[in-house]
Amino acid sequence: MDPLAMVPQVVLMGPGPSLVHPATLRAMAAPTLGHLDPRFLAIMDETVARLREVFETANRLTLPVSGTGTAGMETALANVVEPGDRVVVVVAGYFGQRMVEMARRLGAEVDVVEVAWGHAADVEAVAAALRRGRAPKALAVVHAETSTGVLQPLREIAAQAHEVGALVVVDAVTSLGGVPVEVDATGLDVCYSGSQKCLSCPPGLAPVTVSPRALETMERRRHDVYSWYLDLRLVARYWGQERFYHHTAPVNMVYALRQALELIREEGLVARFERHRQVARALWAGLEAMGLRLAVGEPGLRIPSLTTVWVPEGVEDAPIRQTLLHEHGIEIGGGLGPWKGRVWRIGTMGESARLRYVIQLLAALGASLRRAGVRVDVGAALAAAGSVGQAAT
Amino acid sequence: MDPLAMVPQVVLMGPGPSLVHPATLRAMAAPTLGHLDPRFLAIMDETVARLREVFETANRLTLPVSGTGTAGMETALANVVEPGDRVVVVVAGYFGQRMVEMARRLGAEVDVVEVAWGHAADVEAVAAALRRGRAPKALAVVHAETSTGVLQPLREIAAQAHEVGALVVVDAVTSLGGVPVEVDATGLDVCYSGSQKCLSCPPGLAPVTVSPRALETMERRRHDVYSWYLDLRLVARYWGQERFYHHTAPVNMVYALRQALELIREEGLVARFERHRQVARALWAGLEAMGLRLAVGEPGLRIPSLTTVWVPEGVEDAPIRQTLLHEHGIEIGGGLGPWKGRVWRIGTMGESARLRYVIQLLAALGASLRRAGVRVDVGAALAAAGSVGQAAT
Repeated sequence: MDPLAMVPQVVLMGPGPSLVHPATLRAMAAPTLGHLDPRFLAIMDETVARLREVFETANRLTLPVSGTGTAGMETALANVVEPGDRVVVVVAGYFGQRMVEMARRLGAEVDVVEVAWGHAADVEAVAAALRRGRAPKALAVVHAETSTGVLQPLREIAAQAHEVGALVVVDAVTSLGGVPVEVDATGLDVCYSGSQKCLSCPPGLAPVTVSPRALETMERRRHDVYSWYLDLRLVARYWGQERFYHHTAPVNMVYALRQALELIREEGLVARFERHRQVARALWAGLEAMGLRLAVGEPGLRIPSLTTVWVPEGVEDAPIRQTLLHEHGIEIGGGLGPWKGRVWRIGTMGESARLRYVIQLLAALGASLRRAGVRVDVGAALAAAGSVGQAAT
Repeated sequence: MDPLAMVPQVVLMGPGPSLVHPATLRAMAAPTLGHLDPRFLAIMDETVARLREVFETANRLTLPVSGTGTAGMETALANVVEPGDRVVVVVAGYFGQRMVEMARRLGAEVDVVEVAWGHAADVEAVAAALRRGRAPKALAVVHAETSTGVLQPLREIAAQAHEVGALVVVDAVTSLGGVPVEVDATGLDVCYSGSQKCLSCPPGLAPVTVSPRALETMERRRHDVYSWYLDLRLVARYWGQERFYHHTAPVNMVYALRQALELIREEGLVARFERHRQVARALWAGLEAMGLRLAVGEPGLRIPSLTTVWVPEGVEDAPIRQTLLHEHGIEIGGGLGPWKGRVWRIGTMGESARLRYVIQLLAALGASLRRAGVRVDVGAALAAAGSVGQAAT
């Protein structure tokens, strides 16, 4: 059977993957080159140069790890943390909790700053945790918590960490390429992302960047990194000019990432961030005009690329999402952990951050809710979204 | 610039990646689906079912790890080995040595059975190592050592390991899909591969299969696996019917693997193995008729998918390979470790295992060597290859 026949075009508005531009899909289907072919090495170099642009960093050690965003998280923690190190983790949702679990497995003594779901971390509480007990090796935080829809106050948290000499490890999986991360200006030491969110590349690569300070710490490690595959000192020698053989890069995935980054460069970061903000505002206006309630009350805390909205009282989560997917060809996500069944997660990431998709979604969601017996005002939703989002196309 | 313009079609006859069938490249470029979309879940299930066929196993726990072949090696070792475990590793080349390094990082007490490069392991020596000291948790061996071109006596080694109750961990990166591995019949407990060799899929996935016995051992672990990303108990819950969220599968890479496995199924494993043998015999006959010397003397020890041939006395390795790549559009590999500069490594894997490519390579290599002043008989090489390889097209 033709494999394409199994794969319809779905408007991806879940928590990732996002829509991939046809040019990126085409690039991925280019003939596979040998991973040491000089023409592929040139593509690797270009990819790294463009990753630096999107991370807004001068960090020499910047590369895509050959795994998904979760591999990025593990790479960041495994290279920084040594057994017995004290690590402070801000846990404001599902992915913060995952960092705790990983750091624990790596032998760290983990101190958690617990933040209620849907809220931003209290910088004072973070500062207090950093100063409690012996000096922490690192502070880890998820910038855009995909499980809650809250953007954490990165700059303030990073400043606190630096005051006590801790390295700042940041998960920018859902923010990079859609929301300013500004690795150098914000003072991040290790920052990672995934290819399939605001970069709009298929899943499979995890861009990572490491500050000179963090690199120095890695070079002074007492123990080898448990993982040979994710040991950045080895991976860096492969992606660097030495081309030291480590593993075979996922050649075609790198083609795709390079192309996705090229599209970002053509658009420009400033315009891209503005598009994400504009589209998100249209979505928020539409959802609220429809009568739904956003899970993150304060607009300033909301992630422009990932919106959480409460499932209306008396409505079953899954059937609505199934209707959207199978009848309307639109994917949105359900909740995770304590918010399972309680929220919908709507992604407006990268190529998916277009007003036309917001309009499609509002219409489809409105129709599905009405059919489920919920009184929602679809006309008002479309009008509100359209008027707010006009600038974003 | 059009990304395709940077990527010419190269005949990939190095140690991997191998040529990818156009249908597989096309499948990879299908629209990205959500990783929990039921249509993608069906593709995951099909991929797993076909992986079982190519591994020739009934193992329930069979899946592609979201990383390259090296991630497969690490997954296999990290899930089996616990700190303090005794592990016997057969080191007959570069990749066996890599297993030692990984096992050491995982805290194992590693016992090495050293085998001279270019030779097969002495089964008696393996048996003796297994019985020396306390009972080993596992024996690890590379089936087809890509650095030397030697196929190791898997069945005999596995039998010895089972006699002392050790789990058998096998690297089938260069053999799976081109050379019989027969996981169940051979008695392998954990076996892994890479997508980019005899499976002829782009690099980026590492098929892994685990026997019920090994799974039981994993379930009785005293320590968590250091790696959360590669923890098979978690990954299995994602690939299994539970669909427990662990990471976002590399959706388009899975499309490609599924399609590559479909092509293998259409050809049939028996026919595919025979094609690899036939093409290899043609290559060997051609190289020898040209006056070159194969690095593995005994034909029965040679890997049908990866041939090592000595660089002729007085010839510089790299310029010849550059001529092949840039003038003839053919990639072959250089040597690793002690064989760097001394051998060429010629892959006839998957889609690259075709008589026409062997003929192209022999003609190009012959021409390049003659230009470098080496007297080689290209006519004899082509005649020998053609007559031996006639059955393989």
